[in-house]
Amino acid sequence: MSQFQCNGDQLLVNGHPLNLLKYHAGQTPFYAYDRSVIAQKVRLLRHKLPTALKLHYAVKANPMPAVVNFMREQVDGLDVASGNELRTALNSGLDGHQISFAGPGKQSQELGMAVATQTTVNVESFNELEKLRNISDEIGVRARVAVRVNPNFELKSSGMKMGGGAQQFGVDAEQVPEMLQLISEYGLHYRGLHIFTGSQNLNEDSILTAHRGIFELATQLQQGAKSDIESLNIGGGLGIPYFPGETPIHLEAIGEQLNELMTQFSDQHGDCEIAMELGRYLVGDAGIYVCEVIDIKQSRGTEFIVVNGGLHQHLSASGNFGQVIRKNYPVAIGNKMQQAPEKPVQIVGPLCTPLDLLANKYKLPKVEIGDLVVIYQSGAYGYSASPRDFLSHPHPVEILI
Amino acid sequence: MSQFQCNGDQLLVNGHPLNLLKYHAGQTPFYAYDRSVIAQKVRLLRHKLPTALKLHYAVKANPMPAVVNFMREQVDGLDVASGNELRTALNSGLDGHQISFAGPGKQSQELGMAVATQTTVNVESFNELEKLRNISDEIGVRARVAVRVNPNFELKSSGMKMGGGAQQFGVDAEQVPEMLQLISEYGLHYRGLHIFTGSQNLNEDSILTAHRGIFELATQLQQGAKSDIESLNIGGGLGIPYFPGETPIHLEAIGEQLNELMTQFSDQHGDCEIAMELGRYLVGDAGIYVCEVIDIKQSRGTEFIVVNGGLHQHLSASGNFGQVIRKNYPVAIGNKMQQAPEKPVQIVGPLCTPLDLLANKYKLPKVEIGDLVVIYQSGAYGYSASPRDFLSHPHPVEILI
Repeated sequence: MSQFQCNGDQLLVNGHPLNLLKYHAGQTPFYAYDRSVIAQKVRLLRHKLPTALKLHYAVKANPMPAVVNFMREQVDGLDVASGNELRTALNSGLDGHQISFAGPGKQSQELGMAVATQTTVNVESFNELEKLRNISDEIGVRARVAVRVNPNFELKSSGMKMGGGAQQFGVDAEQVPEMLQLISEYGLHYRGLHIFTGSQNLNEDSILTAHRGIFELATQLQQGAKSDIESLNIGGGLGIPYFPGETPIHLEAIGEQLNELMTQFSDQHGDCEIAMELGRYLVGDAGIYVCEVIDIKQSRGTEFIVVNGGLHQHLSASGNFGQVIRKNYPVAIGNKMQQAPEKPVQIVGPLCTPLDLLANKYKLPKVEIGDLVVIYQSGAYGYSASPRDFLSHPHPVEILI
Repeated sequence: MSQFQCNGDQLLVNGHPLNLLKYHAGQTPFYAYDRSVIAQKVRLLRHKLPTALKLHYAVKANPMPAVVNFMREQVDGLDVASGNELRTALNSGLDGHQISFAGPGKQSQELGMAVATQTTVNVESFNELEKLRNISDEIGVRARVAVRVNPNFELKSSGMKMGGGAQQFGVDAEQVPEMLQLISEYGLHYRGLHIFTGSQNLNEDSILTAHRGIFELATQLQQGAKSDIESLNIGGGLGIPYFPGETPIHLEAIGEQLNELMTQFSDQHGDCEIAMELGRYLVGDAGIYVCEVIDIKQSRGTEFIVVNGGLHQHLSASGNFGQVIRKNYPVAIGNKMQQAPEKPVQIVGPLCTPLDLLANKYKLPKVEIGDLVVIYQSGAYGYSASPRDFLSHPHPVEILI
């Protein structure tokens, strides 16, 4: 993968060779996240997208505190999806004013945390608005609220659709005027709108269409608001390539169109912050998962490379996290980077289930016990999104390099 | 579900009404496991299967220490799949002689634990046998080993095939004679054979066929052994019904055939323990997952019941754990057991992903905030097999009633 360099046979993570990182981590398996790759991605976005666009990091993609602390220095705000993520964001030193909180099932104590710390709550239902009103009254702090909108269109070609039709997310666009009226009546601090349509999209045209739809809908909805719009969160949705045939998205056209849309919007609405919220796109390709070969066996003509990691530690890479068709993540032998692939092998984990498959018919150099298997594109939804206690093996560790 | 009684509108778990159990657990969401349902299942097996058949519990199905302690009193042995599971089994007070350890990627320290505690290791590769030999020498204790066999046939109609063809599990049947020779040469304690073909099978005929194949293969392989066979683990594979149209397996024919097969086998091989290893079948239907309704919202004609639990706490029930087609687990409102279903609803969790769906178009009584949503068939591969840190919500708790 082009985001990582090599030194001879060793893969480098931010300049550090993998054979040393294994000792740095103190064990295998481990996740390693590369600061320079993240920073490079942020620079790319700043370069290609409008200067006025704020970049937010969606903590759920990788909530490791060290990563969140680092992202805090890189971006303009953090977006959280639970009370514990909010705590991590606040612990990084960020002010609640630069944090927003979304999610369809926020509990009262989570809303209390947000109100007390002046975090913007992206309201997702009328019941939630009532709760916020009561909590504001109870603790004597005016809640900062934005409305998460379920738009009346969907993001085509996205890995996950999160808007359009009937949804658990947000308030249907048709119901937003009523909610804006209530926010005003209740005397809450209206921050603006959050319109998110889907994630993991690699198709520029559908992102362009979604952006036009978002700005048009925001303009239309804002007409019913009693207060100025301070903030418009246009979601993220930018995907990263995982599988053969997928390519990184080109940001040029997206940046140019955003420039136009933002200029028009600010002409009409004045000084409104426009933010793009990115998780996977910022950290996904900065991370690798590394496990060690502990056995090699032949069974009826097939070679099985048995490693000490597996689906319990990297569920997505095993193809078992909601995927309909299993595809291989990109894999390498991180201590044999200059050696040519020889023959296809199976890479399997230690679990007593055939689901524990990390690479299927994957061509690799000759593998030996002790080699380090690297799974790329593992910086997002890896460690935290895996059933790490399944079969009670010790957990992997995470390091930020 | 017929394994649980009700008292008025309240679901009972081992006689305890759900509205009290919510306080007993101290929070929602929680998992509750019913001792009486487990004990009833064991009694059923003892009644229908041969008296001489040993019943083992596969700890991986539910490794909660209280459950393992309880199972230890119910069954004749424990089977573990990792060093930590072995620790839990030993902590329950069981002797290593009644424990066996299987898994394709055992690490040296795990093998050391097994050898030192006289746990039987189901050897899965030639490399592993070498390691065991070295560890035995190093700590001066003779390893107790059985050979896990990858049979030359497969279990038809099973949820997961774990034998036949090329496999990461066990030693191909063709290679077993060579391994038996080495075990003898190395002076290790030969315990016997472990032949496991697949799991979650609801088809009696295919189980009957597999059992015949297992005993035939064991007889054939044992001819090459230098020592008597002390133990034959025939695996489990008995499934439980999860989805509409699935029915519990009938044990009668299985018991009758096992009786014949075991009699023949003991005629030939004398005093050999035959064990069936069951996980899901023993605990799966004894457990429920309980979460609380925290919001109800309408979106474009669909009612969404938002609960404080979700895929992060019960991955299988969300349909995202390796399932190709999502099906609903059986669900009830545990405090409205006598109320008639009204209309289909969506039950969704608090995560920011459309994958967080616990029930799709499920007909339930009229649901209100504070109601308790119960997911049945949750005693196995629930808590431990879920990505509980995904979005950093607090974990559910587990109680054994």
